[in-house]
Amino acid sequence: MPYDDSNVFAKILRGEIPSHKVYEDADTLVFMDVMPQAAGHTLIVPKAPSRNLLDADPAVLAKVMPVVQRTAKAVKDAFAADGVTVVQFNEPASGQTVFHLHFHVIPRYEGVPLMPHGRDMEKPDVLAANAEKVRNALNA
Amino acid sequence: MPYDDSNVFAKILRGEIPSHKVYEDADTLVFMDVMPQAAGHTLIVPKAPSRNLLDADPAVLAKVMPVVQRTAKAVKDAFAADGVTVVQFNEPASGQTVFHLHFHVIPRYEGVPLMPHGRDMEKPDVLAANAEKVRNALNA
Repeated sequence: MPYDDSNVFAKILRGEIPSHKVYEDADTLVFMDVMPQAAGHTLIVPKAPSRNLLDADPAVLAKVMPVVQRTAKAVKDAFAADGVTVVQFNEPASGQTVFHLHFHVIPRYEGVPLMPHGRDMEKPDVLAANAEKVRNALNA
Repeated sequence: MPYDDSNVFAKILRGEIPSHKVYEDADTLVFMDVMPQAAGHTLIVPKAPSRNLLDADPAVLAKVMPVVQRTAKAVKDAFAADGVTVVQFNEPASGQTVFHLHFHVIPRYEGVPLMPHGRDMEKPDVLAANAEKVRNALNA
């Protein structure tokens, strides 16, 4: 399937719609998932277009993965999590709903199952506060 | 938490216990998960020791991710999957059970939920046949 630049992350990358931004560099944008599976659920998105991992340029992966790693550490610290799940969905059968490559970083706690994905929209002020927490942990 | 080289993947990497091997290079080993969440569930493991993503050398990540990507494409092709989930667990709270960094690649199908992880041991002949399928797709 070809890349379609009308997806919501492409719009965020173009600045057409807002996001709760955590980090940005020349190649990567990090922002809060608006329908988090746990408080602190963060997304790492390469700026280069690809539908998912299956059609991504390996050079893009090489740039995005260090940011995924740093974000995982920051999210774990910022939310005092016991663990962190990193997941990347390819195609609707796997749970992909936005067709621009992205990595989920989700804080995890002993005995607490994940909330279902994409059910409830979090309040903007909560997302803004959580973005600031991750940003502070990234810069610590 | 420090790395403990008595984990089962370290034993596989040292050749002390067998695995259903799909691919190997200087930095990476790919083999079948013996308790698959779907037929074709494959693991990508860097040879360099780290407990998980949180303590991994970014240079190791740079080497392992292209193999994760190629494996995801091969697994999708080999098992005629509708999608593929890539997931990496950090610490027990997230579902990590073996404390050597690894990436799961799991074929997905429309309307088919994943089996729970780590419940049933697959038969060795099935794992061997599935390893051959992924190997053939990787080499295609």
